[in-house]
Amino acid sequence: MSRWFLVTTDHMLVVSFEPSTGWSAPEIKPYGPLSLDPMSSCFQYCTNLFEGMKAYMGPDGKPRLFRPDKNMARLARSAERVALPPFNTEALLTLIKRLVMIEKRWIPTAEGHSLYIRPTIIGTRAALGVAASDQALLYVILSPTGPYFRTGPKPLSLLAVNENVRAWPGGTGGHKLGLNYAPGFLPQRLAAKKGYDQILWLLGDAVTEAGAMNFFVVIKRDDEDGMDVVTPELDGTILPGVTRMSVLDLMQAHNEGRTSLNGLPKLHTQERKVTMSELQKLSEEGKLLEAYGVGTAVIVAPVGKVGFESGDLTLPAHEKGLGPVGNALWRRLVDIQEGRVQWENWGVLCEGA
Amino acid sequence: MSRWFLVTTDHMLVVSFEPSTGWSAPEIKPYGPLSLDPMSSCFQYCTNLFEGMKAYMGPDGKPRLFRPDKNMARLARSAERVALPPFNTEALLTLIKRLVMIEKRWIPTAEGHSLYIRPTIIGTRAALGVAASDQALLYVILSPTGPYFRTGPKPLSLLAVNENVRAWPGGTGGHKLGLNYAPGFLPQRLAAKKGYDQILWLLGDAVTEAGAMNFFVVIKRDDEDGMDVVTPELDGTILPGVTRMSVLDLMQAHNEGRTSLNGLPKLHTQERKVTMSELQKLSEEGKLLEAYGVGTAVIVAPVGKVGFESGDLTLPAHEKGLGPVGNALWRRLVDIQEGRVQWENWGVLCEGA
Repeated sequence: MSRWFLVTTDHMLVVSFEPSTGWSAPEIKPYGPLSLDPMSSCFQYCTNLFEGMKAYMGPDGKPRLFRPDKNMARLARSAERVALPPFNTEALLTLIKRLVMIEKRWIPTAEGHSLYIRPTIIGTRAALGVAASDQALLYVILSPTGPYFRTGPKPLSLLAVNENVRAWPGGTGGHKLGLNYAPGFLPQRLAAKKGYDQILWLLGDAVTEAGAMNFFVVIKRDDEDGMDVVTPELDGTILPGVTRMSVLDLMQAHNEGRTSLNGLPKLHTQERKVTMSELQKLSEEGKLLEAYGVGTAVIVAPVGKVGFESGDLTLPAHEKGLGPVGNALWRRLVDIQEGRVQWENWGVLCEGA
Repeated sequence: MSRWFLVTTDHMLVVSFEPSTGWSAPEIKPYGPLSLDPMSSCFQYCTNLFEGMKAYMGPDGKPRLFRPDKNMARLARSAERVALPPFNTEALLTLIKRLVMIEKRWIPTAEGHSLYIRPTIIGTRAALGVAASDQALLYVILSPTGPYFRTGPKPLSLLAVNENVRAWPGGTGGHKLGLNYAPGFLPQRLAAKKGYDQILWLLGDAVTEAGAMNFFVVIKRDDEDGMDVVTPELDGTILPGVTRMSVLDLMQAHNEGRTSLNGLPKLHTQERKVTMSELQKLSEEGKLLEAYGVGTAVIVAPVGKVGFESGDLTLPAHEKGLGPVGNALWRRLVDIQEGRVQWENWGVLCEGA
């Protein structure tokens, strides 16, 4: 991950909001620093939110986005959650498409490569009183990225942590706010010192997310009718990820016979509470087949082991890093994202916006 | 509150941190905008923290701070919590004193007026990968302020809220991070629409904080040996406020006979869990004598009522807004802060730094 996300393209989109005049005319202008009053709400009270999206170059040489309406809707919900002004999601999507077209030459064409898109909204009210920001800056920046794993998927080691808690009922874990991330950096540093790649965030005994990814497990069924694929339910502590939603949708279509995921048997999806106790029991019984994290950056990342107070829980090893379910989902997602497979209008062309 | 915190003084203190060179030479320079890369950690992941302090003009014409070592220690703990680089708290305090001396003419001299000091540290790493910021900017800005209540203390109405939660075990409520504030703005707006001034934050049935203040209640004792003064304990969900600590210290000194707070009887301080059920029962029994919020901005603010699902809980009215305990604490604090009373080196002169 560290190689990517350091370089941006030549241009950025900027729109500002003032209470008296509303949103300004949008500008696509040369990438450059933001100039802000030191009192600004974004520095003092963290009224900041963002989205993560990608533009892919299709085999037709045309840039396309992946389910961008989902990101726009989530961005709008995030803005509302921190009392920033509402915006027109369709107009923003049109502007993002135009920006991508202008920066088309920056989209890497190799498989697994894309142009990462980071829409950001920050509160810019310049006053120290503890209150909502009635001024805002919306900007979109772009950064070319390659695959999360340079040499094919390598299973991640996760450290299960419950002394620090990422999200809580009544908190903001279900929104994509910048403020959900800073509290994870110190625990992440401690986990890295212990030799783990990422944290598996717990709430009590319940599993919530893996690093900044949604978490899935594949479980052997007693009736041999395919497998269970389980992810924590959206109870307000879980980010409603676009990749999460998409793998659930694909498995649903597979089960209904609308598509076939690499000849796999039935995949019974379940959105429900998952606990460490359950995972440990399943592992001991040999029923924990696969675990993975999903998200825009990683797409699908295999989990090799989970460190917990009672010892490491080891997942079965697979030749390609990912197990059969994770691999089939990763393959299908990448094929749709990169435009080799058409599926339910998930791929959205940027041209003509 | 809205009148204040809009104007800053002419100068600000700025120091930056780079991993290869450490902290830069500090600069006191004209107040002006910060120029930052749009990818900066402060915008994207909210690696931001601050302190609230005040400089008061003493009757000797000398500017002084109030227990500034406590703010410096808390700022250092906050920086550690979001994995920002450590800094020399003594050196920073010296620089703040120098900045205050340079801006001395901005300190209002009327009683209840002061120069608000806002030390801020923001993460400035310019990269989109989700990771700790290894670059930082520390700055201190100043803003002249007057009393929270222009025409004497007016009892606040609080709406008790538990569907949104300010802080939780394993979260960051015990640190002064910018990210603790943005999630409160939408609930605060909803509370204002219902006619309440501020929110009383609950965690389940337990009271945690009032708006951005620590919360205290005064309770009638069955044995008539003075009163109980209770505030939620520092369990990680409560900000360890300097004003909170100071009123606890003053009551301790009063009970030990080292000082006398306005001829009051014994004040038995308790740091423990306080629930809404307990407050409702005490109120029905006529034992809930006073409630107030304390903090650097308000000093001591009276609470007149608390709205809760089962109806409003009304506190006894007092001629001066504040009851006898709140008023005695407010009076003593202001006298120490403004240099009319010397107490245990709490007042620290800025000159000669």
